[in-house]
Amino acid sequence: MNRLDVRIVRIYLTEAEVHLGELMRHLHDVEKVRGVTVFRGISGFGRSGVMHSSTLLDMSLDLPVVVEFFDVPEKVETILEHLSQVIEPGHMVEWSARLIVE
Amino acid sequence: MNRLDVRIVRIYLTEAEVHLGELMRHLHDVEKVRGVTVFRGISGFGRSGVMHSSTLLDMSLDLPVVVEFFDVPEKVETILEHLSQVIEPGHMVEWSARLIVE
Amino acid sequence: MNRLDVRIVRIYLTEAEVHLGELMRHLHDVEKVRGVTVFRGISGFGRSGVMHSSTLLDMSLDLPVVVEFFDVPEKVETILEHLSQVIEPGHMVEWSARLIVE
Repeated sequence: MNRLDVRIVRIYLTEAEVHLGELMRHLHDVEKVRGVTVFRGISGFGRSGVMHSSTLLDMSLDLPVVVEFFDVPEKVETILEHLSQVIEPGHMVEWSARLIVE
Repeated sequence: MNRLDVRIVRIYLTEAEVHLGELMRHLHDVEKVRGVTVFRGISGFGRSGVMHSSTLLDMSLDLPVVVEFFDVPEKVETILEHLSQVIEPGHMVEWSARLIVE
Repeated sequence: MNRLDVRIVRIYLTEAEVHLGELMRHLHDVEKVRGVTVFRGISGFGRSGVMHSSTLLDMSLDLPVVVEFFDVPEKVETILEHLSQVIEPGHMVEWSARLIVE
């Protein structure tokens, strides 16, 4: 069992934002990152302070969506440089982790 | 593209716990944290060892819920001091990350 | 409020993989880890580059699933040694965090 240094990135969006399809295509087709997973939250709020949430009676169309990916540090750096031009400031976090490889 | 040191916190609860609404109001109204997202898990267990899970036939009413937020370290410290009085020990983790800002 | 050094692990699978039940039983019954949560993603892709996603019209049966757990470093090390024999390389990440304890 070996470890490879990686960076994990989480991007906080909402379903109403148009970025998602474009972002996935970019990460998949252009950057070919190692792994991307998209999660839907059930509630949340960002800098605006506007709460986005779902209940059984009122299905919101603007739930939080988090795009998570990881890759080696240099590649993540390049991707963040690009994404910082299209994603609003304050919506992406990144930290160091280790990927378990062969 | 600049980076701001932040701490990410994840709080592990279940749907049956009453904390969630109160917790969101606290983080939103009082602490005004930068970003909060709530996720529902499909299965999980904690220290008690009791498994919480959902299947198509048996929709559990006590699924895992994770509240994730991030902010600058001093602010997270203050929030954790407060939350540690209302959240059971062993249910909150925190780590250092960088937020991409302008 | 005290802190305990822990490692957080995230394992990236898809619903179609048979690992999940076995993995949960192992973590719950054998390893008795402190906390495990399973999340279903709404979209994602891994090394294969094959996109897994759900839409309202086309419910995929092979959505991404993430198993997250944390425990003290030595215990996580033992678990990773075991899991690296059953989980494909490149599907597990781990990083250091602090658990809030009494």
